[in-house]
Amino acid sequence: MSETASKKRSEKLGDKNDLRIKAIENGTVIDHITPGQALTVLNILRVSESFTNTVSVVMNAGGSRGDKDVVKIEGRELTEKEVDAISLISPKATVNIIRDFEVVQKRKINKPDTVCGIVKCINPNCITNSSEPIETRFIVTDDEKVKSLVLRCVFCESVMTEDLIKYIE
Amino acid sequence: MSETASKKRSEKLGDKNDLRIKAIENGTVIDHITPGQALTVLNILRVSESFTNTVSVVMNAGGSRGDKDVVKIEGRELTEKEVDAISLISPKATVNIIRDFEVVQKRKINKPDTVCGIVKCINPNCITNSSEPIETRFIVTDDEKVKSLVLRCVFCESVMTEDLIKYIE
Repeated sequence: MSETASKKRSEKLGDKNDLRIKAIENGTVIDHITPGQALTVLNILRVSESFTNTVSVVMNAGGSRGDKDVVKIEGRELTEKEVDAISLISPKATVNIIRDFEVVQKRKINKPDTVCGIVKCINPNCITNSSEPIETRFIVTDDEKVKSLVLRCVFCESVMTEDLIKYIE
Repeated sequence: MSETASKKRSEKLGDKNDLRIKAIENGTVIDHITPGQALTVLNILRVSESFTNTVSVVMNAGGSRGDKDVVKIEGRELTEKEVDAISLISPKATVNIIRDFEVVQKRKINKPDTVCGIVKCINPNCITNSSEPIETRFIVTDDEKVKSLVLRCVFCESVMTEDLIKYIE
């Protein structure tokens, strides 16, 4: 089998169910997602029923580093904003960009120093929750004690640490 | 490789990403889901971030019958109510029960004659939307003109045909 044919070969997904899905030609593989967070990643990427490209998801896969989720999405490369949003819910994820069946970029997600326009402020009286056209902005820090990211709103100083998922816009 | 080892062998999912997921030992494969509806199926099965078994999803897979979604879920067999709910959004789906790595049952989903406790009535004044402990019940028919299922509430005669997904409880 030629190199190209090998790359293009279908992959067996099912056990006795003969589902075969093509390898990604162009797109993104998000690997090492925190177990259970794959559906949140799909939400961040706005993948819904109207999305027509192939998407594969494995939740709670047994990888070499223990359980993880994986999302493969055809025909999409992620924006910086999307990567930042994923970092908030899945700080150990890696993002691999695929072009012409090759991994052209493989990178770990880094905790961003600030996140803008991604998370809604928990404070209903924050100016970002008013009718003013002001984008949210948070300073991101780690909190060793709670083993979680801490977001501090630059406008109202509100601190958010738990349930960040609920506030991702 | 022995038969058992063959059954138990891992499967390659990724292209150059070496994700391997185990074959399902016990669980359910829902195949031939209407393209895009896999996430609704996960909702129906209450699969969320707290679910700890392995779940694999492919959306818009190119199968022999054209595009379809597939959901594989470890350690779960579906209730009749869950199968009925799936039938409303994906009438061509098949449900395969896996036990000890074998497909022990493979069946097409049939349109149910009635659905009870699955869909919320569209009529806010329906008795099923009051504080009375009355389970919803709809007569299900096909409508050739709109090529869609039609649900008629047995209590208030309201007819529902579009956006059934929104009303699945």
